[in-house]
Amino acid sequence: MLKTAIIGGSGYTGGELLRLLLYHTEVEISAITSEKSVGNVAQLFPNLKEKTDLCFEKNNPALISKKADFIFLCLPHCAAMDSAKAYLKHGKKVVDLSADFRLKDYKVYEKWYKEKHTAKALLKDAVYGLPELYRDKIKKAVLVANPGCYPTSAILAIAPLLKSKWAKGVDLPIIIDSKSGVSGAGRGAEAAYLFTEANESVRAYKIGTHRHTPEIEQELSKAANKNIRVSFTPHLIPMNRGILSTIYIKKAINAELLLDHYKNFYENEPFVRVLDSGALPDTKNVRGSNICEIGIVEDKRIGMTVIVSAIDNLVKGASGQAIQNMHIMQGCEEGCGLNLLPIFP
Amino acid sequence: MLKTAIIGGSGYTGGELLRLLLYHTEVEISAITSEKSVGNVAQLFPNLKEKTDLCFEKNNPALISKKADFIFLCLPHCAAMDSAKAYLKHGKKVVDLSADFRLKDYKVYEKWYKEKHTAKALLKDAVYGLPELYRDKIKKAVLVANPGCYPTSAILAIAPLLKSKWAKGVDLPIIIDSKSGVSGAGRGAEAAYLFTEANESVRAYKIGTHRHTPEIEQELSKAANKNIRVSFTPHLIPMNRGILSTIYIKKAINAELLLDHYKNFYENEPFVRVLDSGALPDTKNVRGSNICEIGIVEDKRIGMTVIVSAIDNLVKGASGQAIQNMHIMQGCEEGCGLNLLPIFP
Amino acid sequence: MLKTAIIGGSGYTGGELLRLLLYHTEVEISAITSEKSVGNVAQLFPNLKEKTDLCFEKNNPALISKKADFIFLCLPHCAAMDSAKAYLKHGKKVVDLSADFRLKDYKVYEKWYKEKHTAKALLKDAVYGLPELYRDKIKKAVLVANPGCYPTSAILAIAPLLKSKWAKGVDLPIIIDSKSGVSGAGRGAEAAYLFTEANESVRAYKIGTHRHTPEIEQELSKAANKNIRVSFTPHLIPMNRGILSTIYIKKAINAELLLDHYKNFYENEPFVRVLDSGALPDTKNVRGSNICEIGIVEDKRIGMTVIVSAIDNLVKGASGQAIQNMHIMQGCEEGCGLNLLPIFP
Amino acid sequence: MLKTAIIGGSGYTGGELLRLLLYHTEVEISAITSEKSVGNVAQLFPNLKEKTDLCFEKNNPALISKKADFIFLCLPHCAAMDSAKAYLKHGKKVVDLSADFRLKDYKVYEKWYKEKHTAKALLKDAVYGLPELYRDKIKKAVLVANPGCYPTSAILAIAPLLKSKWAKGVDLPIIIDSKSGVSGAGRGAEAAYLFTEANESVRAYKIGTHRHTPEIEQELSKAANKNIRVSFTPHLIPMNRGILSTIYIKKAINAELLLDHYKNFYENEPFVRVLDSGALPDTKNVRGSNICEIGIVEDKRIGMTVIVSAIDNLVKGASGQAIQNMHIMQGCEEGCGLNLLPIFP
Repeated sequence: MLKTAIIGGSGYTGGELLRLLLYHTEVEISAITSEKSVGNVAQLFPNLKEKTDLCFEKNNPALISKKADFIFLCLPHCAAMDSAKAYLKHGKKVVDLSADFRLKDYKVYEKWYKEKHTAKALLKDAVYGLPELYRDKIKKAVLVANPGCYPTSAILAIAPLLKSKWAKGVDLPIIIDSKSGVSGAGRGAEAAYLFTEANESVRAYKIGTHRHTPEIEQELSKAANKNIRVSFTPHLIPMNRGILSTIYIKKAINAELLLDHYKNFYENEPFVRVLDSGALPDTKNVRGSNICEIGIVEDKRIGMTVIVSAIDNLVKGASGQAIQNMHIMQGCEEGCGLNLLPIFP
Repeated sequence: MLKTAIIGGSGYTGGELLRLLLYHTEVEISAITSEKSVGNVAQLFPNLKEKTDLCFEKNNPALISKKADFIFLCLPHCAAMDSAKAYLKHGKKVVDLSADFRLKDYKVYEKWYKEKHTAKALLKDAVYGLPELYRDKIKKAVLVANPGCYPTSAILAIAPLLKSKWAKGVDLPIIIDSKSGVSGAGRGAEAAYLFTEANESVRAYKIGTHRHTPEIEQELSKAANKNIRVSFTPHLIPMNRGILSTIYIKKAINAELLLDHYKNFYENEPFVRVLDSGALPDTKNVRGSNICEIGIVEDKRIGMTVIVSAIDNLVKGASGQAIQNMHIMQGCEEGCGLNLLPIFP
Repeated sequence: MLKTAIIGGSGYTGGELLRLLLYHTEVEISAITSEKSVGNVAQLFPNLKEKTDLCFEKNNPALISKKADFIFLCLPHCAAMDSAKAYLKHGKKVVDLSADFRLKDYKVYEKWYKEKHTAKALLKDAVYGLPELYRDKIKKAVLVANPGCYPTSAILAIAPLLKSKWAKGVDLPIIIDSKSGVSGAGRGAEAAYLFTEANESVRAYKIGTHRHTPEIEQELSKAANKNIRVSFTPHLIPMNRGILSTIYIKKAINAELLLDHYKNFYENEPFVRVLDSGALPDTKNVRGSNICEIGIVEDKRIGMTVIVSAIDNLVKGASGQAIQNMHIMQGCEEGCGLNLLPIFP
Repeated sequence: MLKTAIIGGSGYTGGELLRLLLYHTEVEISAITSEKSVGNVAQLFPNLKEKTDLCFEKNNPALISKKADFIFLCLPHCAAMDSAKAYLKHGKKVVDLSADFRLKDYKVYEKWYKEKHTAKALLKDAVYGLPELYRDKIKKAVLVANPGCYPTSAILAIAPLLKSKWAKGVDLPIIIDSKSGVSGAGRGAEAAYLFTEANESVRAYKIGTHRHTPEIEQELSKAANKNIRVSFTPHLIPMNRGILSTIYIKKAINAELLLDHYKNFYENEPFVRVLDSGALPDTKNVRGSNICEIGIVEDKRIGMTVIVSAIDNLVKGASGQAIQNMHIMQGCEEGCGLNLLPIFP
């Protein structure tokens, strides 16, 4: 039994780790922390009533390191840095779900996040936790930066193209139009995310300024082996979970051939589902699961290719992927406890 | 490995059996039938793409009986009768999710369902599949009538009261006000259940005439050992899954004592969660799970007790309960493959 | 042009008054106040952008009384008392949308609201603003207590019965099961009303303790001319607007005859729609309008009558009714500016 | 009083015409037709109960032409052609809400709609009914082709740019990513639009093949005075009403200057709301109204400009615009009966 701890577990990603790990047969949760909440976790997550005796405690790395061997950091960005340092010092392996170790260049981090980076020394060895691209590095890592939800949906959809012969001549910037359910905004009590404000509403936000932009660009640039710029626009959609990303590539590419390439690229991946020609992803097809679904359409008439991907933002876009990373770091079977089928309807 | 077949698997209960059984480690699905659909089940359930090779076939009892040992009937009422007869003749065990074998008195069936009952001989030995009340009989049954979704939520909430000392003096009829998500209406293409018609809408329907009424009365009468009448009003709510039943008992009963009684009553039940005094059920706390949540409030001022229960209509209200029944009939561990935690948000 | 002021206009009832009054041809809004918000109202209500130059100001009765002749108080309960006193002193007519003047007995108020009543002297002359019951008194009133949303839906549905020959022998308490959209919870940033918490969820709350209970009882007791007790249970439903109340009467009453009585009772009422036998109300049929829809079903088999009513909680349940009251107090045509048809879908 | 008829009034655009015209003080509805429905329109539109005596009749141009002077065609494409011919022959003015007269080149129509065009002779004089671009022509027209919902949102957002000095160097194709509520799919009983299928789901559909594509291209080409190609991708969103279009322009343009240009361009337009720099449209800000809201963001870093527009697909995207066109054709005040403020929440 691997002993894990969830640091900062009162939000939706913490709750999703609880849902997935409490069901996991090879893992136990030895500690969960919250700075604001106390008592049994079921007070905050009534879906888990009678399913666990876990109580929130404070984030005390010395204490928690005695109980747990694997650490999930679900802290806000900037708060995660110090905890990562502390737990690594205690010899623990860490998956950080915040943005603190995703960007390799601390100057890019400081520019987009408007915060000082206080753990620069760790950046070099932190591994970007997208298993489909970095499995070998994740295997050996002690600190994994779990990707953002939007970047997961975008990079999985675009990287195989950029790593193919069709990459040549693709116009920049690549346009990424993403639609996210409201759980992406977290569990904080903000009026903008009240039911009455988010229901019967669709809106774009943070056009050109969303902090996931440099993360997507960093990873696509690596994939392409050249500088890639993206025009990224997130939208808020009246649903609980799910991200659909629609990606516009200015180049007509035969969809069947490109889908074949994607199928090969993801052949051994347990959590990527490349659709057949003619089919298109839907967030409802992946809800509650760790699956990323990808579809491609060529629009010959105007010389375009449109790639669409769907994930559950709380699973493949956060907690499920964090567990997948843990499995790789620990050398376990990757799908263990993660093979839950999507729930429909 | 137990070999099962799903007869009539193109609707939501069929899809939910697929979701739960494909994940089940001790069961395999050997056949699934549909009279209208052909090809891989993932064409109808794209959430299951790449997760199964199952293709729809026709309902041929002779053929399917060679492949499967346990039968789930997801046919419409009236259509299930003949199939039940056929599969029992082939020596198979059957859980019928339709209403055909729920009512012990065929005259009551014929009155409420306006159909001839053509398998009366089976009624005597058919067991009403509510494990919390009939586990011992289910163990020995070859034909189990899986309860309706509304009756499950109502009976689990009321039966313990009627079997207690507090039953005396409870006024009749008992009033049951139920609220159901739209999946309860099935997957048929009816205009009344279009998104645009069901969204931003709440309405009562079939007041006093819903076919689940006699089923509830039959079971409550058995529990009380006297004739019980209920005023049952179902409502349609803009959500996918879930039933909340609010039950009005004209008698003030100390909630803490009554909750204690319920906790004892359901002490060894893996899927009933009796809440502490002060807490109230919410359909979102049980979504995707086989759990029934029950809360009780006494309103001393006016001499009333209000009992509230929540279930997921597709799981405890249909397919999850069917699998629970299968486990009992087969002598397996009851929670096997059914311990999925509720998904939130 | 009647000059009006909205005191406490930053919430949903304030916004709804704006929507309705800005469109009104006989009324102008001379002032709107907020203690927290400043600047143009369209910053808080972007739907009104370019439709008004109104800016929030502080609630200064002396100042505002110079600009406005008719006052809508949209303050929280307890805060409304002082403002009512102040504006009445300045000779203004007031409709108070809070609960402060609804309960005739200040002791009942103090018991249920846990607050001192500091304007007891006004209670005697304050008129309960349900036009269908008190039009004549409202005509002469200077202070009208606008009914609560739940009470409006309940009283309109029950009062005609209690004022009829069928009232005799109706069992008490009358059971009222109400389902409300989330706008009823207001616009405050509370986690419980986040989209992700209220969506795909139905729950009962404040069973037996909701503050609208004594208000319903007061008015039904007056209607019946005897003491009436109700068992009132509100529920939260994932939709923006609307209240559906399902009311259980333990007495079989011929639905056609009772509907005839209701049709007569509301014959000249512009905003009550009594349905024909067989039809049932739906919140979507009244959305955005000042209409209250009522349907009745007799369940002879068990000796019950079920009455169902639907309103839009922000219109007939709050701001629309407030304007209707203003019209009556001012002697204007009652439906002026209020004849907006329900929006569907 | 202008006498109007609604031909094919049983769908959502027919219902919206009813909602708007029944409230209109200068117009009466003299006839409404349906081939399938009979009886009072309130049977299909229960929101209109007691608000009208109108009954569905068959579409008999000779008969209806005796009763009505102005015709709204809400028929499916292809079916509208013949009716248009018939009513024009009877000397009536016609606004056609179908696609039959939108495309100037019948070969383009036949290619995208896979139907023969049987009223080619009318195409020349039919006017594309976007008042903001064609008011003068609409004034003199007898046949107006009411724009599609997606084209309305796209053309209003892009045309002013293409008619400006900034048009030069804008890369083609222009990328239009649109998100629509489910009412856009109509009221037909199709399983894909059931609540349970559309709720908690976002998906793209008909990528590169949606029939509104040539309509958008025709109008943008006219505006630009050169051949414009667009990459148009519609998405289905779980809400009743609203279209948000996000438009990607590969050229950095100063947003404040461009917004100034848009504000000038739409200066006298009663139904276009150009937002200030920094603000972004939201479908909830225009719900139930004839308003189109437009916002613009420059993303200098990558040389992009993003334009976002929001409309209510049933009002400005269909029935509201049809009434606006009627007003222009009849020489009435354009906003009459159309000044309903957006309903929020």
